[in-house]
Amino acid sequence: MVKLPENVLAHGRTRNIMRETFEYGNKRKAQVGSDKVYDYSLGNPSVAPPRSVNDTVRDILSGELSDSIHAYTSAQGAYDNRKRLADSLQRRFGGNVSPDDLYFTVGAAAALTITFKALTVPDDEFILLAPFFSEYEVFLQNAGAKAVICQPDYKDFMPDFEAIEKAININTKGIVINSPNNPSGVVYDGAVIARLSELLRKKSEEIGHPIFLINDEPYREIVFDGKRAPWVPDFYDNTIVCYSYSKSLSIPGERIGYIYVPERVCGHDDVYAAVCGAGRMLGFVNAPSLFQKVVSICDGQTADMSVYERNRDLLYNSLVEMGFDCIRPGGTFYLLMKSPIENATEFCLSARKYDLLIVPTDSFRCPGYVRIAFCVETKTIENSLPLFAKLAADYNLG
Amino acid sequence: MVKLPENVLAHGRTRNIMRETFEYGNKRKAQVGSDKVYDYSLGNPSVAPPRSVNDTVRDILSGELSDSIHAYTSAQGAYDNRKRLADSLQRRFGGNVSPDDLYFTVGAAAALTITFKALTVPDDEFILLAPFFSEYEVFLQNAGAKAVICQPDYKDFMPDFEAIEKAININTKGIVINSPNNPSGVVYDGAVIARLSELLRKKSEEIGHPIFLINDEPYREIVFDGKRAPWVPDFYDNTIVCYSYSKSLSIPGERIGYIYVPERVCGHDDVYAAVCGAGRMLGFVNAPSLFQKVVSICDGQTADMSVYERNRDLLYNSLVEMGFDCIRPGGTFYLLMKSPIENATEFCLSARKYDLLIVPTDSFRCPGYVRIAFCVETKTIENSLPLFAKLAADYNLG
Repeated sequence: MVKLPENVLAHGRTRNIMRETFEYGNKRKAQVGSDKVYDYSLGNPSVAPPRSVNDTVRDILSGELSDSIHAYTSAQGAYDNRKRLADSLQRRFGGNVSPDDLYFTVGAAAALTITFKALTVPDDEFILLAPFFSEYEVFLQNAGAKAVICQPDYKDFMPDFEAIEKAININTKGIVINSPNNPSGVVYDGAVIARLSELLRKKSEEIGHPIFLINDEPYREIVFDGKRAPWVPDFYDNTIVCYSYSKSLSIPGERIGYIYVPERVCGHDDVYAAVCGAGRMLGFVNAPSLFQKVVSICDGQTADMSVYERNRDLLYNSLVEMGFDCIRPGGTFYLLMKSPIENATEFCLSARKYDLLIVPTDSFRCPGYVRIAFCVETKTIENSLPLFAKLAADYNLG
Repeated sequence: MVKLPENVLAHGRTRNIMRETFEYGNKRKAQVGSDKVYDYSLGNPSVAPPRSVNDTVRDILSGELSDSIHAYTSAQGAYDNRKRLADSLQRRFGGNVSPDDLYFTVGAAAALTITFKALTVPDDEFILLAPFFSEYEVFLQNAGAKAVICQPDYKDFMPDFEAIEKAININTKGIVINSPNNPSGVVYDGAVIARLSELLRKKSEEIGHPIFLINDEPYREIVFDGKRAPWVPDFYDNTIVCYSYSKSLSIPGERIGYIYVPERVCGHDDVYAAVCGAGRMLGFVNAPSLFQKVVSICDGQTADMSVYERNRDLLYNSLVEMGFDCIRPGGTFYLLMKSPIENATEFCLSARKYDLLIVPTDSFRCPGYVRIAFCVETKTIENSLPLFAKLAADYNLG
């Protein structure tokens, strides 16, 4: 018989709970009608891409590049695309961004698998701050690195600095942050990033080598209340930015993003070369050429984000009024709600009787909570509120 | 200081000889004019994509899917795209192809890294038939598998079956073929595939587990003299097809291809699940959504391949007449030529004095030969022939 790698097979056989709930929802919609099912399971942007995305595609295809746009680019991305992106980032965030600091990737997932593989030597550890996107652990496993999990301060879901300090040891290679955060919706402000940076500098000195701060920030532009997410490289030299256009431009299917290795990163040229080597080993020849160009032109633009803020207000205020215990999202399109019973999976299953599809965050290493992905039409939220009220009543809330 | 993984760093620092020669060519073109440099270094298709590629993009963007085309698809590819591709393959090659046998990938490189990772358990070995694309060894290293290299029959660059038989042992998990072949241009005919299949069946029985035949076939449609490449799954049950549209549709930058796990593969459902798991671990969330749809519609079409056949005839006939020892390409856009001196690198450097840019195939594990990538304009070949004649004279050929 065929012997296959058990861990790889397991990752292929299991569907994450979000996908599973989504598939359930599709079946249910076929039974009762799609307007009767309130699917809050997936982080699939509901807002259309800005018109400029498809316009830019059309422009390129009707111009001189119509054929050559589909040719190979350099592994790190075509120089002119990296130059345009570097200029855009510099304009938006300041500092000194060079094309040779940028490496286009097939989305943020690829940015992370490449970064982890580029940095990891045997015994290396990366600190993950719960709650976090469950695939981080899968990606670290692929790189042969150990995941060390720190729980948050459950009061406000901000980092527990004491826990992080305790978790750091001689094998710590990096720490991954994801702010704005999936699934909690919290956004670290400048004070939090500054305090984390201070701690990392102190501990890097203690252990005798730098700790990389990997910022997975596909939600960077989805921040509410007129605020904006701090630009992490301003706070900490050894930051590596992993970005995706999936959420900001609503093009998750196109798989396009980048790794930014700022010039001040310790051993910059080696780290960048290792990124190139890791990309090559994993089979990423170059990021898709047409969309490399499209996003380098559209960088900084966004889909209509006001929908998400309106949804946040409506959903958060309503749920709190019903008596649910919720974290107020400062960004993203996720709302984290405490399960009224210890077993969040059981709670989510009980919500299905009202066709409310929400998911437990156990796989985000945050048991006892559920995630509500409000990247849906506002009408869906409005129609679902009476059902959430019934659910609250079932648990004697309010 | 930062400790980085040495092998990853090495793969990032070194450029392969094709890329290096190409970069040299670009500098040289800036000095002497691009019409004076004859760049045969890279396998970048010179023929424009068929009009249908950009037309299909435009159709999709002006239709109902204009926004939703950019959304996430299932990890293995959107069902309707897989269905359309399955139908196309079945129409073209017969058999029974199901959407659940197909997994869209970010090009052939990704198809290979995913397949190797899906199959490899500790101590596994894969047989590679020289000459082969140098990245195979990099991809096997990533999967933790051992590469076992078999030299060809140098008479015609067909497989040396005795060498393959000797190389197979209890740890042999698979064998990789690449027909039509880069860099030799040879195409295995039905008799060769049948003999290889017979051998693999016999040895699979002997060692007590199946040996997978991985066919990397991006050049499947580039076959000359009115022939076509055999459809390998017809010959051997445990075939896994790794395909890319880079060459057939001239869209290498878009990174789109697929893995086909035929239903008769031993442990089909597990192998397919392992493919899904490996794709997930390596960070391929889904293959780019727009081009998934485009290639599923354009499958079976090709760019204008007649140019390559014309180039083959002109180049092969001329070089042979000059006294060079060449393998006649049955397909692809590569011609393999014996170096008149033992050191092929030295020979290639000496060709540079005529601005003829050709590359040694040492990294293809085929020392003493050079590759001439004739995916160039026919005029380039015509203009370069007098210089090849001078080169021949330098080595007293003819």
